[in-house]
Amino acid sequence: MDTEALIGDLTAELSRRLKRSQVQVPIGVSNRHAHVTQEHFKILFGSSAALSRLRDLKQVGQYAANEKIDIVGPKGTLRGVRLLGPCRSKTQAEISMTDAIVLGVKAPVRESGDLARSSSLRLVGPQGSVEVKEGLIIAHRHLHASTAEAAALGVSNGEVVRARVGRSGERETIFEAVVVRVSDQFRLELHLDTDEANAAGVANGDAAYIV
Amino acid sequence: MDTEALIGDLTAELSRRLKRSQVQVPIGVSNRHAHVTQEHFKILFGSSAALSRLRDLKQVGQYAANEKIDIVGPKGTLRGVRLLGPCRSKTQAEISMTDAIVLGVKAPVRESGDLARSSSLRLVGPQGSVEVKEGLIIAHRHLHASTAEAAALGVSNGEVVRARVGRSGERETIFEAVVVRVSDQFRLELHLDTDEANAAGVANGDAAYIV
Repeated sequence: MDTEALIGDLTAELSRRLKRSQVQVPIGVSNRHAHVTQEHFKILFGSSAALSRLRDLKQVGQYAANEKIDIVGPKGTLRGVRLLGPCRSKTQAEISMTDAIVLGVKAPVRESGDLARSSSLRLVGPQGSVEVKEGLIIAHRHLHASTAEAAALGVSNGEVVRARVGRSGERETIFEAVVVRVSDQFRLELHLDTDEANAAGVANGDAAYIV
Repeated sequence: MDTEALIGDLTAELSRRLKRSQVQVPIGVSNRHAHVTQEHFKILFGSSAALSRLRDLKQVGQYAANEKIDIVGPKGTLRGVRLLGPCRSKTQAEISMTDAIVLGVKAPVRESGDLARSSSLRLVGPQGSVEVKEGLIIAHRHLHASTAEAAALGVSNGEVVRARVGRSGERETIFEAVVVRVSDQFRLELHLDTDEANAAGVANGDAAYIV
């Protein structure tokens, strides 16, 4: 390859990355939470209860519910874990690795909904308790984007990128292996769990950069 | 600058970094812990008690003690926090940001010993309690190395480097702003706290790479 062409290619790639790295992507920090089926909700809260909206989340149609449950593990319990709505077809809880140590379980890092061979999960509500054989995961870090936002950022569904967070801070961190998830129900947001956010010293709404 | 010289410089720098990035640096995960003065130890454990060695740490002369205390904050308590020995000239506790949230305090990210304007700290032992106005910190991530190890790695005391951890894993992470601390009492080890280790999915003894 001749030198002129090499320098041309390098310059083009650096320019593409430089442009992308200047877009501020808001960080959404996910605290431990659970999604439940309609049937499990009725067992946990009573047959006449209904999941109720506390506030909308940034992702379209998703909301934080008023209702909270406990997650019980062999070594400890996580109390007051918030449910997210609406109800889903499978019950799952997303916790941090720190939480997994408190519970005394070894939960796998997974994308939401990918529950095959994940850890068993015991939820306790005010009216009853539920145990599922698979359902406890640590969320894989990911980037949500609408189709238009993904196009503007130059990323596509399923792509793996890296995100710089806490830029110029004392805990600045680059998270590798960020999975891009594109849908018109999604809004641009880098989802980190509390371990990731605390390790990097960042909070909800802080800026991330795809680098 | 002519093209030949540019390519020569880039090649030399990449080669230096490539070589350095192939050295496996062991990770040491620091769980929350406290260092106390001799005087405070006597208040916490009684005037006839003495700090006793459970096991040596990798850093020369440092040890995990058998004794544990509680750290009490306005919102919560961290129970059974291990003391490290030997006693120091100032009492301090190093916790994670997750721990700070449990306590309900805003602790600064600091290098060990840099306690000016850090958070107040209340320790409770079996025989008494101690409160210091400054002493609660979140440890700044750092790399320990002996003089010879630092030279072999091409780093120097006070230098700020970055470390890749969890290489090729689902939570691979690059920690920026790693402070290098060189002393002949030190042994090569990247010190991360539990938030950082959990965010990157790594444990004690796993490999880090200076990149």
